[in-house]
Amino acid sequence: MPIINENFIINTNGNTDIINITKHIQNCVYKHELKDALVCISIQGSTSAVTTIEYEPGLIKDLQQAMERIAPSSIEYHHDEIWHDGNGYAHVRAALVGSSVNIALKDGLLNLGTWQQVVLMDFDNKERSRNITVQIVY
Amino acid sequence: MPIINENFIINTNGNTDIINITKHIQNCVYKHELKDALVCISIQGSTSAVTTIEYEPGLIKDLQQAMERIAPSSIEYHHDEIWHDGNGYAHVRAALVGSSVNIALKDGLLNLGTWQQVVLMDFDNKERSRNITVQIVY
Amino acid sequence: MPIINENFIINTNGNTDIINITKHIQNCVYKHELKDALVCISIQGSTSAVTTIEYEPGLIKDLQQAMERIAPSSIEYHHDEIWHDGNGYAHVRAALVGSSVNIALKDGLLNLGTWQQVVLMDFDNKERSRNITVQIVY
Repeated sequence: MPIINENFIINTNGNTDIINITKHIQNCVYKHELKDALVCISIQGSTSAVTTIEYEPGLIKDLQQAMERIAPSSIEYHHDEIWHDGNGYAHVRAALVGSSVNIALKDGLLNLGTWQQVVLMDFDNKERSRNITVQIVY
Repeated sequence: MPIINENFIINTNGNTDIINITKHIQNCVYKHELKDALVCISIQGSTSAVTTIEYEPGLIKDLQQAMERIAPSSIEYHHDEIWHDGNGYAHVRAALVGSSVNIALKDGLLNLGTWQQVVLMDFDNKERSRNITVQIVY
Repeated sequence: MPIINENFIINTNGNTDIINITKHIQNCVYKHELKDALVCISIQGSTSAVTTIEYEPGLIKDLQQAMERIAPSSIEYHHDEIWHDGNGYAHVRAALVGSSVNIALKDGLLNLGTWQQVVLMDFDNKERSRNITVQIVY
């Protein structure tokens, strides 16, 4: 069996909450004591996304403000005309950032840069529980 | 052989046409009756992209309007000075959204959220025929 | 062993330098003389990204200008209050474009469109040396 499916749950505050999930991914991967592998991270749901950033408080604010410029929460969305849940902007942001990211495992370590972390972005306008899948192909 | 290559063709209207391709992907994957696998979707071409969204008419309009704000079709692009095909904005949009997405197959089912669908976005300014590849690693 | 890890180094000028890395990827892949495979490209670092575009001088300028509109280098970033390295905009751009992309290998060829090339985008505000990983799953 050359593929392992792992997953974990993260509770978020929504509202473009940005959470460092690097340690969770390491926990899923490192216990298998593999040397070289492809690690695929994907998130369920249409108002959240995964990407990589330098995880520090300043940049988190910058990224939240950037998303507010790109898909403002203050304008009207057709999505909200139907569902009236006021999270149209969250759907647009998630579609742009994307729901999956790949990282190489090399000599037993995730091949991230010194300052590079994997993050979950939750754009929904309320608290959510998110299910992240980590697939390890080796 | 732990990898299967499948593909399908979608005819689009271009002009930021957004098409739900979830069923096509399921057709490629489910016939192999696998339990756990990595499913990688990629699209050929430099004016189209794949991502995941809640596929409903309001959000489709929202996403089209967001792309119009992010890379307006009304401004001038250097790309069009050379090719004169007027689709510079389409290239920029495609580069931002991205050409590939991964989904986990778990217990025989694509691990999408309840409202999450895989979509093809065709940003070109004319009708196109698009070739989508589905790779299944198991 | 169904997975091969390759990598290469690219020296960039930073400042949203956009470099065609398709030939480098082909060099990593084609020497193995495989028929069908999944090719996963990922980049280390939090101020660079990978995506696919039609690589021509006009579009390169268009994409650089689009990034300048989406995450302007002229506004203030909280990230720079801490590090004072003036590259907050580079981090935001990288998070949006993304650090990984997948391409199918079919009948021994990378399944790119006629005009579609894989590019490295370096958003940092200085020259950098970038490490790109190419994983081949077959």
